[in-house]
Amino acid sequence: MSWVYFNHEFVKEEQAQLSYRDLSVQRGYGIFDFFRVHQAQPVFLEDHLARFFYSAEQMHLPVPKTAKEIRHLILELIRSNRIENSGIRITLTGGLSPDGYQPGTPFLIIAEQPFTPLSQEVLNKGIHLISYPFQRQLPHVKTIDYITPIWLQPYLRQQGGDDLLYHQHDRISECPRSNFFLIDQENRLLTPSGNILKGITRKHVLKLAAQHFTIAEKTITLSDLRNAREAFTTSTTKWLLPVVQIDGQTIGTGKPGETTMKLRKMLEEEIIGIQNAKVKM
Amino acid sequence: MSWVYFNHEFVKEEQAQLSYRDLSVQRGYGIFDFFRVHQAQPVFLEDHLARFFYSAEQMHLPVPKTAKEIRHLILELIRSNRIENSGIRITLTGGLSPDGYQPGTPFLIIAEQPFTPLSQEVLNKGIHLISYPFQRQLPHVKTIDYITPIWLQPYLRQQGGDDLLYHQHDRISECPRSNFFLIDQENRLLTPSGNILKGITRKHVLKLAAQHFTIAEKTITLSDLRNAREAFTTSTTKWLLPVVQIDGQTIGTGKPGETTMKLRKMLEEEIIGIQNAKVKM
Repeated sequence: MSWVYFNHEFVKEEQAQLSYRDLSVQRGYGIFDFFRVHQAQPVFLEDHLARFFYSAEQMHLPVPKTAKEIRHLILELIRSNRIENSGIRITLTGGLSPDGYQPGTPFLIIAEQPFTPLSQEVLNKGIHLISYPFQRQLPHVKTIDYITPIWLQPYLRQQGGDDLLYHQHDRISECPRSNFFLIDQENRLLTPSGNILKGITRKHVLKLAAQHFTIAEKTITLSDLRNAREAFTTSTTKWLLPVVQIDGQTIGTGKPGETTMKLRKMLEEEIIGIQNAKVKM
Repeated sequence: MSWVYFNHEFVKEEQAQLSYRDLSVQRGYGIFDFFRVHQAQPVFLEDHLARFFYSAEQMHLPVPKTAKEIRHLILELIRSNRIENSGIRITLTGGLSPDGYQPGTPFLIIAEQPFTPLSQEVLNKGIHLISYPFQRQLPHVKTIDYITPIWLQPYLRQQGGDDLLYHQHDRISECPRSNFFLIDQENRLLTPSGNILKGITRKHVLKLAAQHFTIAEKTITLSDLRNAREAFTTSTTKWLLPVVQIDGQTIGTGKPGETTMKLRKMLEEEIIGIQNAKVKM
């Protein structure tokens, strides 16, 4: 049973319990962020902390600790739990509301869970996306709202898909927990520009790719998928994940793309390189 | 401190705490319903229970008790708490998820809170609505998702409004916690038909009004507001609440409408009549 930083103290996981009157339970009001821990070092922590504070500010939720204090608490948590591979989730809830509607004093939770990396099998096979007309509310904020994609799980299974691809009026935005990229016939790397959560992995992939490819953040429609040579998603948990089918239509050769796998390798080397440098420090 | 029915037992309110890993806290996944208790009798309980079970089914959340058992638990809660005027909220959360995404075993919470009825002052004055382009996800289900309207509270105050009125492409749907009605120049009672939560008070107002007015559930646009003689909202907490201004534009005379107040009186008499009949039984 691991330790959890919970409302100003470290407690054992089973003690990390909050009132049913918290605004997250009553009104789904809260934000979070999630990052990987590799060799006891948080991956891209500064990016995640910056986004966490941005989300909190956007939702009018004051964070009870500074970024420096949170960084410190995270390292303390990692030292206490000693989990080989993990993911850490920082959550900020709406708190105990005076009237069940106005936010109260936000509740800060930092929790670490063992993390199972993506299997080689899934990576070799790639995934099948099912498009769905939906636009997340407050897309630029990492809120806790995942009602629609969880509600759609039976539909997704019925369609034989692995994940959803949101679009509105045919304009693609993102997947529920990842960003979407495609590589077109001119070998350009394209990704939707608007109405999305700006992923941290997305940012680093764009930076790495810019050294080798023409990249563009632009409007992408469902019909642009017909001309895609490759497609992939990016996320903190999966890094780059090849997409080989969308709505039953094969993308490129129907196998994970060469460029996708090259970019994945580059990202992996960057992450491991940064981590090794930190460990040696 | 009142009693709360919490995951198979009655506990004191401060003990009604759930894990931070519940899917409501992690992913905003849950449903609820809310009804008034008047003279120790739940108001329109059968309607609320039916909607609660409908919401649960829509969200693929099995309810751990039958409607009969829940009715029994509610009456037991009312007897234990002995609160003069109250509101009861039944919540069903996504439960402890195995992977932080798939629903677990849902958590049932039944909680009673003192209820302050609408003040005569607000009723005499009426309210000012501010229109906002938004469509709730899964509008027919009473989910716990109130992220957008809570996020909009500072904007609403800035605009000098009392509540929001959602529309999409000018078609009016509903307010965040109430349904919307207008009375047109021909004295017809109109209310939006689609993309809304079907309110229990809305249903009873339509039934009562049908005896005296032409009623229609239809598309209503923002420009239809110009020809409105009266407007009001309906909800469990406020019954009928006169709307006297929308986006700074006066509705009718700018005072609570005569027909609105007549309908309110009819609803009040119906509720009190039913309650008195129950108490005498």
